[in-house]
Amino acid sequence: MSERRGAAVPGLSGAREGAAPESALERAGGTVIFRDAVRGDVPAIVALLADDALGAGREAPVGAEGDLDDAYWSAFDQVQADPRNRVIVAAAGGRVVGTLQLTLIPGLSRHGMLRAQVEGVRVAASHRAQGLGHAMIEWAIAQARAAGCGLVQLTSDKQRPGAIRFYESLGFAATHEGLKLSLERRPS
Amino acid sequence: MSERRGAAVPGLSGAREGAAPESALERAGGTVIFRDAVRGDVPAIVALLADDALGAGREAPVGAEGDLDDAYWSAFDQVQADPRNRVIVAAAGGRVVGTLQLTLIPGLSRHGMLRAQVEGVRVAASHRAQGLGHAMIEWAIAQARAAGCGLVQLTSDKQRPGAIRFYESLGFAATHEGLKLSLERRPS
Repeated sequence: MSERRGAAVPGLSGAREGAAPESALERAGGTVIFRDAVRGDVPAIVALLADDALGAGREAPVGAEGDLDDAYWSAFDQVQADPRNRVIVAAAGGRVVGTLQLTLIPGLSRHGMLRAQVEGVRVAASHRAQGLGHAMIEWAIAQARAAGCGLVQLTSDKQRPGAIRFYESLGFAATHEGLKLSLERRPS
Repeated sequence: MSERRGAAVPGLSGAREGAAPESALERAGGTVIFRDAVRGDVPAIVALLADDALGAGREAPVGAEGDLDDAYWSAFDQVQADPRNRVIVAAAGGRVVGTLQLTLIPGLSRHGMLRAQVEGVRVAASHRAQGLGHAMIEWAIAQARAAGCGLVQLTSDKQRPGAIRFYESLGFAATHEGLKLSLERRPS
């Protein structure tokens, strides 16, 4: 029942293998490229995830003398090997200044509609309030549309009211409650 | 970059192939079995998705003279071929009386934590208010824990306040806004 079929998975793998997987955003401060993350980006992505009031307690970025936790590398390998998951970075001048994850979820609901989910959105402090987050989400929406999705969804912590208004300005509607149940002992 | 590695995907595929993929719930009205959906269950699952005030406008169950929309079959095949997605049914006396979808999402956030997402939860009108929904979600949580997840998440429409209280009674916290952006022309 769980046997993998030979058929290609429609969606993100196609986007990844397509002719133009990268996208460039011209900004006052220079060009920002949107592209799939590579393994060498992982420490910078984790640093971005941690550079946030809520993220600071959740992540363990590379310290002065430490290597990055193996769990990050393993998770990155799993994402990279999954045609329905992508970690994206926004790169400016060779530096990672933004990130998000895009997941395609097939399902029976709404006429067998494919949905896209956005997680882990972060913009570097140096690049906030300059339209980069807006461009990243618009880019993600375009990727979802190209993959055949009928819906883009995400959840946003109620402790970040600015973020919720930001998504509403992009056309998202806060129609749902986002419920979470932690299975970990450490604070989440 | 998108090349599939040979490594096995940890998670739901293991649960599917395990020795005891089914689970039985003894209830006053008889035994309810939780199992992975098979293709023959699809019409009954779609009928459940449609049997709901919000779902009625979104789905096209099999009518008196009609076959089920191809999109449902195609979506089911995609779920079934994906080791990180499962559609589950609760079956009582050979009849599908409940359904949910479980998706595993690998990602870098929270120390590379694997998360489980629940979508498309429905219980047949004949079996509501008898603890079946509660047992289904507890079963899903146990599956998520067995797959190594640190978090279970779902969104619930604000038009279903009873559902939100139901999830809170199971330990979920409504810490997030659930934001959706429809890419379709038909009402969602």
